[in-house]
Amino acid sequence: MENLQNDLLLRMVNGESTERYPVWLMRQAGRILPEYRAVRSKLSGFIELVTTPELAAEVTIQPVDLLGVDAAIIFSDILVIPEALGLDYEMIEKKGPFFPKTISSMEELNALDKEIDIQERLWYVIEAIKITKRELNGRVPLIGFAGAPWTIFCYMTEGQGSKTFSKAKRLLYADPEFSHALLSKITDATITYLKAQIAAGANIVQLFDSWAGILSPSMYSEFGTKYVSKICDAINEAPVTVFAKGAYYARKELANLNCETIGIDWNMDVKESRELIGPNKTIQGNLDPCALYGSFQTIEEKTKNMLNSFANQRHIANLGHGVYPDINPEKVKCFIETVKGFEKN
Amino acid sequence: MENLQNDLLLRMVNGESTERYPVWLMRQAGRILPEYRAVRSKLSGFIELVTTPELAAEVTIQPVDLLGVDAAIIFSDILVIPEALGLDYEMIEKKGPFFPKTISSMEELNALDKEIDIQERLWYVIEAIKITKRELNGRVPLIGFAGAPWTIFCYMTEGQGSKTFSKAKRLLYADPEFSHALLSKITDATITYLKAQIAAGANIVQLFDSWAGILSPSMYSEFGTKYVSKICDAINEAPVTVFAKGAYYARKELANLNCETIGIDWNMDVKESRELIGPNKTIQGNLDPCALYGSFQTIEEKTKNMLNSFANQRHIANLGHGVYPDINPEKVKCFIETVKGFEKN
Repeated sequence: MENLQNDLLLRMVNGESTERYPVWLMRQAGRILPEYRAVRSKLSGFIELVTTPELAAEVTIQPVDLLGVDAAIIFSDILVIPEALGLDYEMIEKKGPFFPKTISSMEELNALDKEIDIQERLWYVIEAIKITKRELNGRVPLIGFAGAPWTIFCYMTEGQGSKTFSKAKRLLYADPEFSHALLSKITDATITYLKAQIAAGANIVQLFDSWAGILSPSMYSEFGTKYVSKICDAINEAPVTVFAKGAYYARKELANLNCETIGIDWNMDVKESRELIGPNKTIQGNLDPCALYGSFQTIEEKTKNMLNSFANQRHIANLGHGVYPDINPEKVKCFIETVKGFEKN
Repeated sequence: MENLQNDLLLRMVNGESTERYPVWLMRQAGRILPEYRAVRSKLSGFIELVTTPELAAEVTIQPVDLLGVDAAIIFSDILVIPEALGLDYEMIEKKGPFFPKTISSMEELNALDKEIDIQERLWYVIEAIKITKRELNGRVPLIGFAGAPWTIFCYMTEGQGSKTFSKAKRLLYADPEFSHALLSKITDATITYLKAQIAAGANIVQLFDSWAGILSPSMYSEFGTKYVSKICDAINEAPVTVFAKGAYYARKELANLNCETIGIDWNMDVKESRELIGPNKTIQGNLDPCALYGSFQTIEEKTKNMLNSFANQRHIANLGHGVYPDINPEKVKCFIETVKGFEKN
């Protein structure tokens, strides 16, 4: 067993007693730091940072050193899975991801490589995890992650961000057979990938279902939770966190997943979420990322409101979504310090 | 009293008995029609259509003639209010609205015109309503509309569409005083505007709070519902519908509004919404717009599922959001005909 100096997050995830709530920030707290931008500015772009293990490890550790979070999350991207499956992507500055080639039929799905060694294709993530673990040297746990199958399906079929993801959703209604086949392929790859992350040293893994909120309850049950559930059942080597953004309607269903932690976004009321999810899971979240635009006093007040709503149960303090890149690092520190200074009764 | 040949929508809104569920499609069913595109293609752009009353009336009536909906909704845009308040907008093809000038401080707010004659500045909408009423000649009711204050605030401060509207939300946390002042100004203008629409012939008015879903429950209560409530209280001349997209967490609060109808999006379960809202409001919605990409059989099945969930209570059949522009008109007809052929028990 690894000897962690700060194992607060893992104890909370496992339902053990803790002296205070652990705190970290989705997805990469580092993106707000000048030190991150310094590393980033020397490179051709985001993807070079993702695929260069030494640098990915460096920016993974920055928030631990500079902000004092209770966990690191490996610097990477959910879109490495589509790439490993044969769909290359570009990251366009101020616009987001773009896939020159998308997939929308059984023929195109069958044309993708059959035999893929996920670990080999994603060696750079595995290597980044190994370097990070070595350099963290037991200070805090490391979180690995992947996109949930529905969210990855969105990008593989839509090819880019979208307000409606209507091309992706269209396929669920118009071609459910293809949709299930692609979701299954993504699910299998994701299981292999997460197991490799854990083998390399990730202490816990999180599934990000960023586009869960655009589906109706019955569609998310059929095309979303079904595959998240398969992944949870397959991962027994480390605790799993499921963050299905916007899927407020699925909280009762998510409570039945074979996972330890459920992430909630800032739309979801903490008390109501606890009632729906029950006492046997850890809940992670959920301060509005925009609250960090407020004054120090406002941040402290809103953070304490959140902490009080935790009511001494199993909670990890976090934002309800990723930190926005233009947030002042001092404001993030205010959030973190408020959590650290808050005494559980 | 006006003598309507088809008053199904108004009877449903008022809680009277009806032989079947009324049906229409948000926002402009006409946008899917070749006949709409024929009118549109002769013009310089969207805004010319909005500001030319004869043509706005023509495309307002097209879905009544060609699709057989139970109500017309005036062809216009929620952004005419910011324009009337002094912020011009452009509609950029495939991108959406853009405001060259935005507002983010008390100084900028005070610099806007104090005395504005909303009816005079928006004469073209009022005129379009009068022409539409004359040409509809009592066939179906006409729906007027406006954006809800929070949604209009989003555009006036952010200046364009956004995934996060973080500039707009930032102001709520960083400058609540300015935020309330701007929301109040929008609210007053909206009340005047809706009263003018009703005086010109609108039989019912709908508030679209398109960005309600990006606020936390407490922030929406403070900056959203508060102003929607003021509008509902001020409009006594016609029934009011409130559609707060994404504000699932506010359904109980919305049930207390002084309005007749609550719109729900496709994320919201019909049965749960009825429980939260209670029996004394009409509920409008909520088929997933993407369901219309399915086969005729799929559309019929999903529509009947929705109609069955209505359980013979006060419901208006609609989509859970606006119809997407690339939907086949025959698929829309299938949706409408399925509603019309469905017998309430």
